[in-house]
Amino acid sequence: MRSRARGTIGPVDQRAVRQHNLGLVLRHVAHHGERSRARIAAETGLNKTTVSSLVAELIERRLLCETGMDSGGSVGRPGRRIQLAADGVAGLGLELGEWHLGACAVDLSGRVRHSTSSAWDKRATSPDECIARLAALAEELLASLGVEGLTPAGMTVALPGLVDIARGTLFVAPNLGWSEVPVADLLREHLHAVDFPIHVDNDANLGALAELREGVGRQLRDFVYVFGENGTGVGAGIIAAGELLRGPSGFGGEIGHMPLARRGPMCSCGNRGCLEVLAGRDALFRLAGLDGYGHGDGSEEAAHAELLARARTHDPRTMRALGEISRALATGMTSIANLLSPEAIVLGGYFATLAEWLVPRIERELADHVLGSRWSSCRVLVSTSGERAAVRGAAALALHEVLANPTLVPAARSSLPRAPLSAEPAAVVA
Amino acid sequence: MRSRARGTIGPVDQRAVRQHNLGLVLRHVAHHGERSRARIAAETGLNKTTVSSLVAELIERRLLCETGMDSGGSVGRPGRRIQLAADGVAGLGLELGEWHLGACAVDLSGRVRHSTSSAWDKRATSPDECIARLAALAEELLASLGVEGLTPAGMTVALPGLVDIARGTLFVAPNLGWSEVPVADLLREHLHAVDFPIHVDNDANLGALAELREGVGRQLRDFVYVFGENGTGVGAGIIAAGELLRGPSGFGGEIGHMPLARRGPMCSCGNRGCLEVLAGRDALFRLAGLDGYGHGDGSEEAAHAELLARARTHDPRTMRALGEISRALATGMTSIANLLSPEAIVLGGYFATLAEWLVPRIERELADHVLGSRWSSCRVLVSTSGERAAVRGAAALALHEVLANPTLVPAARSSLPRAPLSAEPAAVVA
Repeated sequence: MRSRARGTIGPVDQRAVRQHNLGLVLRHVAHHGERSRARIAAETGLNKTTVSSLVAELIERRLLCETGMDSGGSVGRPGRRIQLAADGVAGLGLELGEWHLGACAVDLSGRVRHSTSSAWDKRATSPDECIARLAALAEELLASLGVEGLTPAGMTVALPGLVDIARGTLFVAPNLGWSEVPVADLLREHLHAVDFPIHVDNDANLGALAELREGVGRQLRDFVYVFGENGTGVGAGIIAAGELLRGPSGFGGEIGHMPLARRGPMCSCGNRGCLEVLAGRDALFRLAGLDGYGHGDGSEEAAHAELLARARTHDPRTMRALGEISRALATGMTSIANLLSPEAIVLGGYFATLAEWLVPRIERELADHVLGSRWSSCRVLVSTSGERAAVRGAAALALHEVLANPTLVPAARSSLPRAPLSAEPAAVVA
Repeated sequence: MRSRARGTIGPVDQRAVRQHNLGLVLRHVAHHGERSRARIAAETGLNKTTVSSLVAELIERRLLCETGMDSGGSVGRPGRRIQLAADGVAGLGLELGEWHLGACAVDLSGRVRHSTSSAWDKRATSPDECIARLAALAEELLASLGVEGLTPAGMTVALPGLVDIARGTLFVAPNLGWSEVPVADLLREHLHAVDFPIHVDNDANLGALAELREGVGRQLRDFVYVFGENGTGVGAGIIAAGELLRGPSGFGGEIGHMPLARRGPMCSCGNRGCLEVLAGRDALFRLAGLDGYGHGDGSEEAAHAELLARARTHDPRTMRALGEISRALATGMTSIANLLSPEAIVLGGYFATLAEWLVPRIERELADHVLGSRWSSCRVLVSTSGERAAVRGAAALALHEVLANPTLVPAARSSLPRAPLSAEPAAVVA
């Protein structure tokens, strides 16, 4: 009743009704799993003829496919179950990390079809050269998809800084020393025959979305995903009431630049004592005496393995270093928990690999320093998407647009007969 | 179309339709001002007969009244303009401040009908005695409303701590030394013949709502209201996309306990160096050498006047003190702005009285330390509701429930004829 009263009743646009209902059926199968046409009809409130027509079109667009027989069903098509098509479209995620470039393709069933990454040296590479390398990774992916007959539905690029989503631009990435880079336009120039949308987004926001949709955040509605870059950066993505909270400018979540120590080390943003220079991976390497390791040449993995080995033997310097970054992180998390009162903080990226040392200390600090912790404690959880969260989130976001509007994907050449548009009622469930 | 599809179409409950439409018409007049029945019908999409019936009921419930003739209207009732009734119902706001108790009654036209406050000494008064005094203020207000023939529609109590809105309980107010006080129940025991709802809420949240609805926040959708208590406390209310962001537990906005200095002064919450012990009013008085003034005896006003006089003559100690609290506030605001990226921070309560010294420094710090400030700066604005924001917000919240559901207010004894329920269509505009 209430929701109906919100809209205006005017001449009904049957094309919009059709598009809406296509999305509704597709998302219904995406969220609830494979089922028969009859069940989709019963659960959505659409009539069976309409569901058959919608399913036919979604099959034609290679977004749904038929699977085995429904156990209780009668013989023939209506008894067959419908599921998301794994071999129709794929979402592409790219990631421009501080010292690595990554790419992955995820099909509509959620399976990672291809994944690749390579190191790059941010000190020796111009933005245009870097984007050219990212484009080369994307071309590899596109070629593999082509061989398998998958259609790219869209591409999202995870960037380590402030982004302008509307224009596809990176405003600033202090840890790269970049500003005002038109990433989406540059990618389009480097790629051949792009007929899908290219978007950019902040890496921590994408990581938060990945956790929300397929990670530890699936059971949560309010959490803060805290992302440790494999380098200097620290960022956050805030999920409030099940939605990403970007703030009006889209710049929310920049916890890396929370001021914690006015006389602390210099940060790439030009200030001193920001959270990320006290708690990021580079800070940990420095405090632990591992900062001699090279960057962008893969030797960080050896350094990280060495750090974990030393921590497991309780090496005093390593334990002090872990204690210091835990304390800085905990101070930042305490402010966040007092301010937003989330159900949980989810440690992601580099921090996830250090969970056994970070979590107990942060939990203790939150219990001691968050005013409401006696009545509603903020848990500290560990990302299940690991270091691939941002690029997975990027690919998922590209697919999300297809779930929102299946007509973005072109139909196959053959054209199935459809029910007349005017005969189709609006869907009646959320 | 889309919003319609969200609801389920079932047997339509005509009573719910009527209640919904009553609220729709009442809010339409509340938001858009006085107008004729014909215009209400045209703007809401309801038919004229339905509008006449709804308006008649709202007049009967003393929520609307007739005013002068509509200039373009014909002779007779349909040409008369309708406005909110100032003499029907009133919302009651109570405030339990650190050193003062306040109460006010606001009528539906937004006018403050009565307002009263008194000092209390939190050190010498038990929670029950304090609530008894608050109840006495409320009885004063209720008596005055009775004389004027106004009906109390509801009461909200602003509290300086964490609240349980559902149970009407104060969980903890560190600066009062209180915990687990069933404020709403105690008030009900002390008041005679309460036939209206009593709610509690956090003072900074209510202040933020007051700013959003009738203050500097009317033009904003995303801001953080930072409230300086007349005492020790500092709190915040976060408005995100035009809504109060409470967090799942309702404990959001506790910026007073953001940890800024681990070796700082002891805070009432048991930790050291929280924002409020560095930037609250008591901190300022102490740093400025004015902490000899009594509490709860009204002498703070003299101390505050003295502080302002000294600041205006650039007394060095006072200027240093203002500089220190500005710096602590600015550090906290920088974290908030990096995290939430709001359009503005609104300084309220005690901080509003110090705006000329606080604002320039905070603005400078935000410009220097917030990563996105070059592309989207966070303004620092000053509350226009002043120190009465929380109690005004409390009264407004009580009235808000009536706007949401006008049937909460009993109809007058006379019963006007109504159109049969089944004849009434659902409203069709937002």
